[in-house]
Amino acid sequence: MTNEQLFDHIVRKRSFLCVGLDTDVRKLPACLSSHPDAMFEFNRRIVDATAPYAVCYKPNLAFYEEHGAAGLDCFERTCRYIREHYPDQFIIADAKRGDIGNTSAMYARAFFEQGTVDAVTLSPYMGRDTVAPFLAYEGRWAVILALTSNASAADFETLTLSDGRMLYERVLETASGWGTERNTMFVVGATQARELERVRRIVPGHFLLVPGVGAQGGSLSEVARCGMNDRCGLLVNSSRGIIYADSSERFAEAAAEAAARVAAEMDALLSARGL
Amino acid sequence: MTNEQLFDHIVRKRSFLCVGLDTDVRKLPACLSSHPDAMFEFNRRIVDATAPYAVCYKPNLAFYEEHGAAGLDCFERTCRYIREHYPDQFIIADAKRGDIGNTSAMYARAFFEQGTVDAVTLSPYMGRDTVAPFLAYEGRWAVILALTSNASAADFETLTLSDGRMLYERVLETASGWGTERNTMFVVGATQARELERVRRIVPGHFLLVPGVGAQGGSLSEVARCGMNDRCGLLVNSSRGIIYADSSERFAEAAAEAAARVAAEMDALLSARGL
Repeated sequence: MTNEQLFDHIVRKRSFLCVGLDTDVRKLPACLSSHPDAMFEFNRRIVDATAPYAVCYKPNLAFYEEHGAAGLDCFERTCRYIREHYPDQFIIADAKRGDIGNTSAMYARAFFEQGTVDAVTLSPYMGRDTVAPFLAYEGRWAVILALTSNASAADFETLTLSDGRMLYERVLETASGWGTERNTMFVVGATQARELERVRRIVPGHFLLVPGVGAQGGSLSEVARCGMNDRCGLLVNSSRGIIYADSSERFAEAAAEAAARVAAEMDALLSARGL
Repeated sequence: MTNEQLFDHIVRKRSFLCVGLDTDVRKLPACLSSHPDAMFEFNRRIVDATAPYAVCYKPNLAFYEEHGAAGLDCFERTCRYIREHYPDQFIIADAKRGDIGNTSAMYARAFFEQGTVDAVTLSPYMGRDTVAPFLAYEGRWAVILALTSNASAADFETLTLSDGRMLYERVLETASGWGTERNTMFVVGATQARELERVRRIVPGHFLLVPGVGAQGGSLSEVARCGMNDRCGLLVNSSRGIIYADSSERFAEAAAEAAARVAAEMDALLSARGL
């Protein structure tokens, strides 16, 4: 998917919501406990319920790999289901991979040739070699970690370099030169909305994937104020706040309602920006 | 496995060789081309042939995930095969994972509870949150990327911080405080053997996983001179130089010969150190 297609989808849907499919079998609603394919069934019903309000789905691989080959199969079927039934949805494999050279190329093949996702999250630690193979696929994206929303982001990401900038700023500056605004996004945590202003000075045009709104405590209006550009430029993720909105039989309806509430706020924020 | 058990194994085997099971189906010997389970069969025969000369196996997940659920199943069966037939071998899942909090805990469960590996490679970019869940398992290890052997390691790993040190040195210093010498190793690339001296000043007692000897060009004697400590403290990996030593029907014998040559050199280096 191109950045123009993604932007068109956002404007049409009046939403820049990414639903995180962090599907933890320990948190599935009781009504699915005896379902033979509970994890996939949960995902399917969440996707069907939330698709009108979202432009993106982001399954986190950890939740699937926990179940070995069967879990990976569920991940793949979930992606195929979304691609087939909601072809305009952007799909991000939240894998945070970070290997090099022929190994990185192997991961790129796994996700982009065997799999059906639009984008993969990547760790920048080992440098360009990690990301380059993912940039060779037309219409596919590398989503590079810059500033994350966890407490220990301060261990390394915000260390000050000898030139006075912080490590994540250098990551943005260097890594934005590897690809283009058509194939590279950055992860910027929403618990640090003011940092988004610094980020926008370095990468004014790139899409940013913003986790940490909702359960992790970021404010959507702050994120939009500091991070939105004239092509929106934001995908804001919510996982637990939507997919676990309710644990009863009406979990899917509750997820839809939670997603609709976020989307309504996003609609207003887009309108305020004239989008 | 404890560090004492690993050290005992090294001294008994006269080897600190780690064989990288980077099994690329495009490079399998022709004699396996019609085998219904070629990837696993290749691994099984390589392991059987090289086990007398190695103390560690390191399958890189990328090569397995390329084949989706079936590939992950092959990875799991390979680990179980090693665990069952060669219980004193150390197994490292080269996954370079790097997520946080409950997601990182999920990965730890996937590898240490569902799986049978001793250790997992991790990227430090997001800080302590990435590594902590892996340190909660007695006898299991986090193997943290510090200085890697690829060209673009210079993009970020060797950036100078405001205190004059390089990023990877700060990673060593900070991350060595998260766990102990009994549950934490570091990856240090062998193409930069002189850097090993700097590394040893920061983490004198930790085991180091050293890739890049062989096909990537590092010198084993240089690595031992700069990196060996009085408990050996080294696992030196070779992948392509061993597993693809020959593409004929005698691929496994050739792998054994290549591993034996490396082990002979390691024996001499251990003896020179009085181990």
